[in-house]
Amino acid sequence: MTERAGRANVVGLGLVGGSVATGLRARGWHVTGTDLDPARGADAVHRGAIDDIGLRPDADLTVVATPVAAVVAAVKEALASTTGWVTDVGSVKAGIAGEVADARFVPGHPMAGSEQHGLDGADGDMFEGAIWVLTPTAETSDAAFAAVAHVVSALGSEVVVLPPERHDALVAVVSHVPHLMAATMMALADERADEHVALLRLAAGGFRDMTRVASGHPAIWPDICAENRDAILDALDGLVRGLGETRAMVAGGDRDGLLARLEQARMARQNLPSRVATGVSLAEVRVPVPDRPGAAAEVFGLAADLGVNVSDFEVVHSSEGDKGVLILVIEAAHADYFRGGLRARGFRPGVRLLD
Amino acid sequence: MTERAGRANVVGLGLVGGSVATGLRARGWHVTGTDLDPARGADAVHRGAIDDIGLRPDADLTVVATPVAAVVAAVKEALASTTGWVTDVGSVKAGIAGEVADARFVPGHPMAGSEQHGLDGADGDMFEGAIWVLTPTAETSDAAFAAVAHVVSALGSEVVVLPPERHDALVAVVSHVPHLMAATMMALADERADEHVALLRLAAGGFRDMTRVASGHPAIWPDICAENRDAILDALDGLVRGLGETRAMVAGGDRDGLLARLEQARMARQNLPSRVATGVSLAEVRVPVPDRPGAAAEVFGLAADLGVNVSDFEVVHSSEGDKGVLILVIEAAHADYFRGGLRARGFRPGVRLLD
Repeated sequence: MTERAGRANVVGLGLVGGSVATGLRARGWHVTGTDLDPARGADAVHRGAIDDIGLRPDADLTVVATPVAAVVAAVKEALASTTGWVTDVGSVKAGIAGEVADARFVPGHPMAGSEQHGLDGADGDMFEGAIWVLTPTAETSDAAFAAVAHVVSALGSEVVVLPPERHDALVAVVSHVPHLMAATMMALADERADEHVALLRLAAGGFRDMTRVASGHPAIWPDICAENRDAILDALDGLVRGLGETRAMVAGGDRDGLLARLEQARMARQNLPSRVATGVSLAEVRVPVPDRPGAAAEVFGLAADLGVNVSDFEVVHSSEGDKGVLILVIEAAHADYFRGGLRARGFRPGVRLLD
Repeated sequence: MTERAGRANVVGLGLVGGSVATGLRARGWHVTGTDLDPARGADAVHRGAIDDIGLRPDADLTVVATPVAAVVAAVKEALASTTGWVTDVGSVKAGIAGEVADARFVPGHPMAGSEQHGLDGADGDMFEGAIWVLTPTAETSDAAFAAVAHVVSALGSEVVVLPPERHDALVAVVSHVPHLMAATMMALADERADEHVALLRLAAGGFRDMTRVASGHPAIWPDICAENRDAILDALDGLVRGLGETRAMVAGGDRDGLLARLEQARMARQNLPSRVATGVSLAEVRVPVPDRPGAAAEVFGLAADLGVNVSDFEVVHSSEGDKGVLILVIEAAHADYFRGGLRARGFRPGVRLLD
């Protein structure tokens, strides 16, 4: 659907901020940026990641891409000194969403990155095909949500809406603990390599795949571990419990138990969801959105709850003021399921199959 | 160095056996093969993985590629019914090396594979650039070792020689436990996805990388876990201990400890050894090999102990019967170090820098 280029500020010009800036510029946006490190701002201009240094008060959107611990202050400053929408890209959301309540603010987290660091790794296409979580608060306006969601779509990502606390619990399992796990496994292999220098030469593709994330820069992790401490500890405990079960199967020669566990993992791995596949039948779901804050975000949140992929969407404003229609494109096979869920939440959806 | 095509038997036509057969045929060998499942043998002929079904008594080499638990019987049968060299590709080596003592047998393990299964995944180039461990026994003759090592090189792999017990301890750390870990992590995520259907949609590149090995076929793992039980339990315990330390750092907000651990892992991951880089200076090391069994294997074993990559090698037989010269090509920067090690083990190496 139509993408409108505008003016954006990017606060914090590291890997993610630099990638957002580069991606927006490539899509016709005028991008200004700031960084605590003046040299990095100058470097960003020099590399063409941003047009100019600075924070434009009249920018349509300000993207806060500072380290997690600095996000709240930067978002508050952006809300105070600009008139547009504000979003952030912090990896932990509950603290941020709890501390900033503003109709213009949409907390977010793109599930994309790389092992590179800073502007060297910045890539305007980094978000193509990625999931980008938005965690709107009770105060976030539908207009802010729709505007930020459109920018996310323009950068090639798929919007998934989750409550902030749920986001944090889920990323602990699929991102934070796997990262700590990879580092712990790599450190163990490194220590054992002191005794057996050949050890690391035997590290084949599987081991290299599993430890790749450990080659990333560690600076962001103490903040993430502090901000998402409880969810990380809970997921770590679950993992250690699972390893204890696996150990017992190995120690006891429980062939059936091992096979069942490995088969469960295999099925789950093979069924990891991907974006809407090309070639499948699609359906258009039209949802009149009532005049209350957060209704559009609630529709997206329900899609996430039900596991329904939204491959495209548009907000059409009606002539009656704040009311509008949210149009979502989903797989046709999910249409009835999604329609049932929407009715149960008080919406009145219409469904049309697309060719 | 020169590669001589000959006749090979391949016993067991699964992923690895099928890949060895395909790779040898592509390099001019005549390959016969057998499998417990007659349909699979016929399929292998149909696909062109082997020339014929059967076990030729006069084959130059028999490669045993059965499941680990069946290797010893198949190797003994090959030694009894053929006159050539025999090797195997089992993932655990101490049991096999301990049960078969024969001058013609060289136990081996290619550190390559894929998540595919059976002949569908067979690929004659699977071993290009991989490490292929050989674990010669006290009885293995130099001629057998040299012949098998040459075939391994012809398939594109780098030979690393290790004692069987050491091989098993090392692969527990870099292969077996990482595999169990990936499956355990995937199973945990799958269980939590029952509560939060959105969880697996957030699984980005890092999680997908880490769990990729878990999508492989589980059938081989109960055998591997049984054969390498003690080393796997030891490595699992080390991993759980390491996770306990990581957990304590997260729980206690130990930023410095976390940074140090992640930085150690990052350095180790970035320094994972690769094959001899192109463009580096090379040296040729000539090692007269005395007339005793295992001398050539001992030279390779020392290279593995010292972490010296052998990028190419040749055995030149002297006119004085069983004596010969082993010529190895290594990085020039390692030449003095390797020469010192060889002298300390009683060899009399000569070194020549190559252009």
